[in-house]
This record gives sequence, structure tokens and C-alpha cells, in this order.
Amino acid sequence: MRVRAVVEYLGTGWCGWQAQPQVPTIQCALEKALRTAAGVTTRIAVAGRTDAGVHAHGQVVAFNVPEATDLRRLLASLNALAGRGITVVSLEPTHEAFDPRRDALSRTYQYTILNGRPASPFFDDRSWTLYRPLDLDLLSRTAAVIVGSHDFAAFRSADCQSRSTLRTVMRSQWQRDGAILTYTVTANAFLKQMVRSLVGTMVDIAIGRLPEERMAALLVGGSREQAGQTAPAKGLTLLEVAYPRDGEVRAPRARPQ
Amino acid sequence: MRVRAVVEYLGTGWCGWQAQPQVPTIQCALEKALRTAAGVTTRIAVAGRTDAGVHAHGQVVAFNVPEATDLRRLLASLNALAGRGITVVSLEPTHEAFDPRRDALSRTYQYTILNGRPASPFFDDRSWTLYRPLDLDLLSRTAAVIVGSHDFAAFRSADCQSRSTLRTVMRSQWQRDGAILTYTVTANAFLKQMVRSLVGTMVDIAIGRLPEERMAALLVGGSREQAGQTAPAKGLTLLEVAYPRDGEVRAPRARPQ
Repeated sequence: MRVRAVVEYLGTGWCGWQAQPQVPTIQCALEKALRTAAGVTTRIAVAGRTDAGVHAHGQVVAFNVPEATDLRRLLASLNALAGRGITVVSLEPTHEAFDPRRDALSRTYQYTILNGRPASPFFDDRSWTLYRPLDLDLLSRTAAVIVGSHDFAAFRSADCQSRSTLRTVMRSQWQRDGAILTYTVTANAFLKQMVRSLVGTMVDIAIGRLPEERMAALLVGGSREQAGQTAPAKGLTLLEVAYPRDGEVRAPRARPQ
Repeated sequence: MRVRAVVEYLGTGWCGWQAQPQVPTIQCALEKALRTAAGVTTRIAVAGRTDAGVHAHGQVVAFNVPEATDLRRLLASLNALAGRGITVVSLEPTHEAFDPRRDALSRTYQYTILNGRPASPFFDDRSWTLYRPLDLDLLSRTAAVIVGSHDFAAFRSADCQSRSTLRTVMRSQWQRDGAILTYTVTANAFLKQMVRSLVGTMVDIAIGRLPEERMAALLVGGSREQAGQTAPAKGLTLLEVAYPRDGEVRAPRARPQ
């Protein structure tokens, strides 16, 4: 039986999603819990491989368990075993071919900046603290430039292995609630460190380190050196991954590699 | 110069506010930071002595520093020295007789319950997780009984040293936002563990362990044994302490001991 799970984690103290030798990762912790709870040694597939320190509210994963597995009991066991900072929110049977990464229609990330006040003990592990006040209008204008299909080659890390750097951004929005500035971005898919490079560049524009026109220029063949800093991982959260509804028929579409 | 400070802390890992030998407390951490930053050995006065594990958003404290102290620089030093989980939000000069506890008009506490879902990595150190769904209407009816001046003797810990157990509650309200249940309570002052005993009793009523009528009965000479459980400290936050505005004249009033 193939199972689809929604997972939450606070990335603090974890070396990201992907299994690596010698270091604690979310994937290893969940695969180990699954081995103990269901007696299966399996590879867990994931929608978005988050970096070290990045959090997830609605990460989607998939794995196979024996047909007779009681999912309610498995959920409780996984949560007892997974370790501090990881919660499996739900489990449901899915079709055999379900691939959380390839089947996803879009991902939504959120970036949080604590702005205009000292670091907060309530937000320190889940936000970037910038004391100097940032102009919401300028941030919003810059974010609006990103919406649409563009070449995001200037906004990826040196070790990003995607063949295509074209991505389609459906939403790119800043909001302010008191000292909390939140950036929400939805795209069909993201390059490695794309959100953090976008946020760092928007912040560099907001503090006058880069000119406002730079953002548009970067989207037509810009290079990483012309973009801004990479915002810290701890401010980033994978909020949601969207899939077609069951039975929904969609026209075939090109998928970014 | 007497200084009034607003302090935030995440109580996790701290043994509460009050200085005690051998254990880490917020008061000790701040007094030590003040010693290093301003060279003064002084006792810090506080509005509300929070218990181990309890958090504070708007704790108010006061202390004396030499007349020539640069408060802007002192704020930065205190935040660099105070330790993980503690932030001094603001410092301002105040009158010599300012006593954050005696001068307070009211305190507001907030209690957070994560309800109807597994524990969340984002809320675990700042909420009480109760999987069984709680009825908001029943919680709200019970909370409304508390408003007004009552004898709260049934809602304090055995070691509470207040002479009077009369307190006046101005606000007592539950709200639900998805899985997050929040209880907000404002009173002139609180007995030791009063909020946690009230929350535990309301939860016991909501899950049917105690009858709904019990709350009213407890407020007229009830005993601690007839009340409910004590809710865990980690769900509690001291939200705000209110003071008269500068220059405001108020009629003399009796203060609870």
C-alpha cells in the first residue's frame, strides 16, 4: 500500500531533509521511525528537499507499507518515534504511482522577517531579525516583478543541479503585521535556494544596497553575483504543496527538470 | 536613575523569574547582565513572578543605574549578555518610586491549547496539546462565570502566600483559530498558579470530568481539591501589565496582598 503523509518540522538542529551519512536529517529520522513502527526498510519520497534549518508546515511525502497496515496506529507510532521537532500530521492511502515531487502542481513558501525591533525569543529560530525598518511599498513593488514565467538562473546556489532555470511564479507578496514582515511565494517549482536569494535581493534593494531596477534586470539573464545576499535558512518555511484533486484531468504540461 | 524595562522571554529551560541558588532564573540572568553592562549590583523588581516554564511577552521590571547611563547602549549590551530566550524590548527613565508590582493596575495572561491534532513542532514548547476536541461554547460559558470580584481560594497552589484571595477579573475569554484555542484573562492581580488552575478546571469541565456548575460553586468558598487539574506551565504567557498613564490621577484603592 502506498501512503501519502503530511509532515511538519521545525528545521532547527536538523541538517535538512535529505539523508546524508553521519548527520541528523529529517528523512533519516522518518525512515528509522518507519522501520521500527512498521518493520519496513523503505525510501521515503518527498515533495521538497528543504535545506538545513528550513522548516515545513505542509511537507508531503510518500512511502510503501504492507497492505494490512493500520494507518491510525502507524500515525501514533511514527509521532512517538520520529524525534523532537517532527510531527506526522496525517496519513492516507494513495495510488501506487504517486510521486510527491513530480505530481505537485505548485509549492508555497513563506519567509519571515522580524523588523524594527530586537530579536524575539519567540521568533528567533523561525525568522530573520533586521533592526533597520524596511519599506513595505518598495518590497511589494519588487516582489510584483517576480510574478510570471522567468529565468531564475541568478537566484540559485552554485550546486543547484536543475537543467532548466525557467520557473513560473503565481504569487509573490509581502505583508506586515506589526514587527513581522512575511513574504509568501507560490511557484510551479523552485531552484535550490531560490526563495532565500529572492528575499536577500529584495532586502538589499529595500536597504538601498542595490537599485530597485536590478530585480527586473536579473530576470533576463542576470548572474548570481549581480543578485543580493542569501537570506538565512531559519526564516524559511515550506508552507504547502498543491496537487490535482482526485480524478481531475489536466492537459499534459512540461515539467521543469 | 530608575529605569523601567519591558522584557520578553521564552520560559523553556528557565526555572522561572525569581532568583534561586544553583538554578538558572530570568532574574539572575538579567541581574548578571546588568552587573557586566553597567557595573551595578542591584535587585531587579518585577511585575509578575512567573513560574518555571512560563513565558512573558510584556513583563515589566525596574532597576536603578548611574545617572549618566546611556540607555540606548545599555539596551544593546543587555540583549547581547542576557542569554538565549531573553530579550529586553525597551528601557525608559521612570520616577524614583516606581514599583512594577504595586503600581500595576492589571495583568493579562494568555493560555494556549493545541486541540484536535497531534502536537506541533511549532507550538510544543508554548502550548498544551489536547487531542480530544473541546467545545468552545462550553469553555466560553465557564469562562464568563469568572468575570467579576470573587474569592479564588480554590485556584491557587498550596504554597501561595497571599493574605487575601479576593481578585477582580475584568476579562475571561476563549477564542478558536483552527487548532489553536486561546484563553485570555485580565485581572487586577493573580494568585500563584491561578490561571493554570482556572484553565485546568475549565478543561476538566469541557471533557466532562467535572460538572459545568462546579465553576460557580468554586468561587464561593470552594477548595483546591474540588477544582480541576493544573494546566502545564508551558502553555502560559504573561502578555501585558497595565499602569496608569503619566500624570493620571486615580482614587485610592485597596490592593490585594
